[in-house]
Amino acid sequence: MMNTPLTIPPMLERAERYFPSKQVISRTLDNMHRLSYREIGRRTRALASVLNEFGLKRGERVGTVAWNHHRHLEAYFAAPGLGAVLHMINMRLSSDHLVYVINHAEDRILLIDEDLLPIVEAVKDQLTSVHTYIVLTDKKEVPQSTLEPLYSYEALLEKGNPNFAFLEDLDENEPAAMCYTSATTGKPKGVLYTHRGITLHSLVQGMVDTTAISENDVCMPVVPMFHVNAWGLPFSATFYGATQVLPGPQFTPQLLAELIESEHVTFTGGVPTIWLGLLQVIEKGNYDLSSLRAVICGGSAAPKSMIESFEKKLNIPFFHAYGMTETSPIVSYARLKSYQHSWPEEERYHIRAKQGMAVPLIDIKGVNENGDIAWDGKEMGELLIRGPWIADHYHDDERSQEAFRNGWLHTGDVVTIDEEGAIKIVDRTKDLIKSGGEWISSVDLENAIMGHEAVLEAAVVSVPHEKWQERPVACVVLKEGGVVTKEELNDYLATQFSKWWLPDDVLFMHQLPRTSVGKFLKRALREQVVSAKKES
Amino acid sequence: MMNTPLTIPPMLERAERYFPSKQVISRTLDNMHRLSYREIGRRTRALASVLNEFGLKRGERVGTVAWNHHRHLEAYFAAPGLGAVLHMINMRLSSDHLVYVINHAEDRILLIDEDLLPIVEAVKDQLTSVHTYIVLTDKKEVPQSTLEPLYSYEALLEKGNPNFAFLEDLDENEPAAMCYTSATTGKPKGVLYTHRGITLHSLVQGMVDTTAISENDVCMPVVPMFHVNAWGLPFSATFYGATQVLPGPQFTPQLLAELIESEHVTFTGGVPTIWLGLLQVIEKGNYDLSSLRAVICGGSAAPKSMIESFEKKLNIPFFHAYGMTETSPIVSYARLKSYQHSWPEEERYHIRAKQGMAVPLIDIKGVNENGDIAWDGKEMGELLIRGPWIADHYHDDERSQEAFRNGWLHTGDVVTIDEEGAIKIVDRTKDLIKSGGEWISSVDLENAIMGHEAVLEAAVVSVPHEKWQERPVACVVLKEGGVVTKEELNDYLATQFSKWWLPDDVLFMHQLPRTSVGKFLKRALREQVVSAKKES
Repeated sequence: MMNTPLTIPPMLERAERYFPSKQVISRTLDNMHRLSYREIGRRTRALASVLNEFGLKRGERVGTVAWNHHRHLEAYFAAPGLGAVLHMINMRLSSDHLVYVINHAEDRILLIDEDLLPIVEAVKDQLTSVHTYIVLTDKKEVPQSTLEPLYSYEALLEKGNPNFAFLEDLDENEPAAMCYTSATTGKPKGVLYTHRGITLHSLVQGMVDTTAISENDVCMPVVPMFHVNAWGLPFSATFYGATQVLPGPQFTPQLLAELIESEHVTFTGGVPTIWLGLLQVIEKGNYDLSSLRAVICGGSAAPKSMIESFEKKLNIPFFHAYGMTETSPIVSYARLKSYQHSWPEEERYHIRAKQGMAVPLIDIKGVNENGDIAWDGKEMGELLIRGPWIADHYHDDERSQEAFRNGWLHTGDVVTIDEEGAIKIVDRTKDLIKSGGEWISSVDLENAIMGHEAVLEAAVVSVPHEKWQERPVACVVLKEGGVVTKEELNDYLATQFSKWWLPDDVLFMHQLPRTSVGKFLKRALREQVVSAKKES
Repeated sequence: MMNTPLTIPPMLERAERYFPSKQVISRTLDNMHRLSYREIGRRTRALASVLNEFGLKRGERVGTVAWNHHRHLEAYFAAPGLGAVLHMINMRLSSDHLVYVINHAEDRILLIDEDLLPIVEAVKDQLTSVHTYIVLTDKKEVPQSTLEPLYSYEALLEKGNPNFAFLEDLDENEPAAMCYTSATTGKPKGVLYTHRGITLHSLVQGMVDTTAISENDVCMPVVPMFHVNAWGLPFSATFYGATQVLPGPQFTPQLLAELIESEHVTFTGGVPTIWLGLLQVIEKGNYDLSSLRAVICGGSAAPKSMIESFEKKLNIPFFHAYGMTETSPIVSYARLKSYQHSWPEEERYHIRAKQGMAVPLIDIKGVNENGDIAWDGKEMGELLIRGPWIADHYHDDERSQEAFRNGWLHTGDVVTIDEEGAIKIVDRTKDLIKSGGEWISSVDLENAIMGHEAVLEAAVVSVPHEKWQERPVACVVLKEGGVVTKEELNDYLATQFSKWWLPDDVLFMHQLPRTSVGKFLKRALREQVVSAKKES
């Protein structure tokens, strides 16, 4: 067979060639843009020529500090098309970490949204590798800024070459993109994505039995484009000529609902907190969201009650996926097998609330101190993953040795795997609660509590205990107008769990601390709870 | 990213692991078999252990002379799992060619269906590389035969190791399978398929916008398993855990209709002559074929009238695909783009009757004496193809130089490509008719003639002409009870073509000569017509 490398430029070229009139709908601070793939192609090539003019070399990194919009999408393809690496930076990182990731990745050029300039301005004197700043804005004028030299993206594109040819000798194993994981402790860890990995990941996203991205779709990634390549959706949606809706900066749940309705969005993906917010809005408002064929939820486990709310109340199909920055990210996808469709409803939701089967080309297993766990849905072990879009190291980082061993990524997630091969995340290894020598899953408790009608969000953390070593404590945020007591909540839980699983205490809070990508920050919460208990 | 090779064993392992209870339904001479993927996996591993015991070495070829059934499927995975190459032999080859391909491939072991033993017995003394024969039969006893040594497949499997482990150090660029093209002139040409090519081809077959093979499918390959890996369907159907129906030896259109009805087949693929036969049977009989979500037609172009018959009369979705032995085979697939669904019906069928857009990862262009043809649906040129499952040479064959040049496969097919990127096969370069310096497409004429209600099949060939160099002559087989004169047929064609395109003569025949894979044998037909015209 021909030695045809699996690289990113043909993905954009496919959209240019076969779907030139299909659209990318992009919201920026001031406008809604509608660009055809023909225009996106020309602009991307112009951007590549501009980056080339700025001296960006093969393998060098160009950073983005940007929301989900068409200019970010253009950068997704322009940098890899030059053989450079697009480093998508999480703008919610602390200043320390922001400086760390930019310097550690040795970004040469930064593309920055106009409203995010202050974030970079605040740390500019600590940046050691950046030689050029480009501001992403609808205007051709360069705004006031202390960054220097600073260029306007649109002014540069006017001078760029819209027929610039992408590199033809790209190797499929060259890096194309880069993200850092927002670790809860220590510095962020960098993951490099290769052309091959991204291409294979995109192929699997187009498959019927996974996310099934198709030319028929109107695809809206709500997951940020700095977060694991927006789960790869900008790549696959472009590859297959899907219409894309990019919701831009600082969107609200209302805005998302409006975009879904007005643009007939068929497919969207994001973390549970996004869908919690959307759920509240659409339960109150009057939106026609019937175009949605799939809402994909990842990042953290969504409670079964959320899945049921979407499907039963709103008739919107809702699917769990599982992955992480190190895995590009799709590892598994929760769908029913053909013969499970006739199973009882309760059983079907039980399956759907798990993280699902590994997708094709991905191999998984669970391991504990006794070796490989049984696929019985009971035995718990750490999830190990391998496959062609799974990282094999962190960029220039000693912590690689810990996570990548014997050809497997050690995820730090504790799982069970059932007879049908469905993974269920039980906990993070460090969040699992060990009470009297037995494991209690904080995730299971959280999901159950969030199933109570009065509860908006819940997190369960372990607190030290003299007799039992550790005991669970629940931190609960109630819905507007929701009322429930600690006792009522424990009575409610007692129908689902053994008595010794029930939280020793329930703390009602106004909000839960979160990581920069919206996950509960359990470490901070645990400290908060422990110190609160000491004070009381 | 991890250096995970794309190889065939994980495809079967996926079925074993996630879909062990899903079934392969297999018809043999004496029985209908229903085997689970758990059993198929154990039997395949046992077969691999047996082949290993017989001394089959990495890279060596094992041949099959067999129909579509579960034993053939087991061989599809057992040989590659050992690092060997499965050579699927077309049992309809002439004796000369049969001997040529077996010796040229240097097959070491032959797996032969019981009813096909005589074909091999007839040439056994000319075979130079085969050291072992295995007969594929439900019986454990070895039948009478002059082949030696001859073993019974089932007896061997009983002694094999059902837990045999496939090779773990397979390289994705190693060959896994081999087919010879049944060239109309000269010796057959051998194509080697690699693990990587087959895996990528399978991924694309699982995509929504192509054949969309899914776990929900009941997949029946009617295309023979010796013909381009049955278009890759046994690989992809296994990979995704689809139910498979293998129709076995010497099936009739009635049998196919019965299998579709009884097994609720959702997906099937084959050449136009198969579908012509099925159409006749189901128009007469009373079959419930409502389970079918797609009938795929390839090998030759199906006339638009056939597509309309399937869809309008029978409500069975019918799709064109295009490929060849050198292309694994899927190159393009004819489906409507999202915005074409609202186009007028006539226009939609016009699109559907073409060969469609290239599938992801495949690059195409048309070339004539003026260079690359315009994508205007008018300019004709030879189709060139490249991609990761396109052959880059024929096995040990000087003719490689002619077909594979500058990184492109030169197909010998003349095409137009329209503004939407849809390929339309106009002719074989050698079948195109040059009349008075202008090209006439024999394929367009054939499809139009086959649209006439009285016509079953038609082939158009060129005959030499003093004044115009070449002129078209139509060879027509009428339906049972169909009546049409030469003049009526030309009047009918005159509504669709310029006058100078109309055939000079129409010859009514009882049947048309075909190649061993069911295509019209135009060379033979042309000789027949020319000599008939000389005699008259």
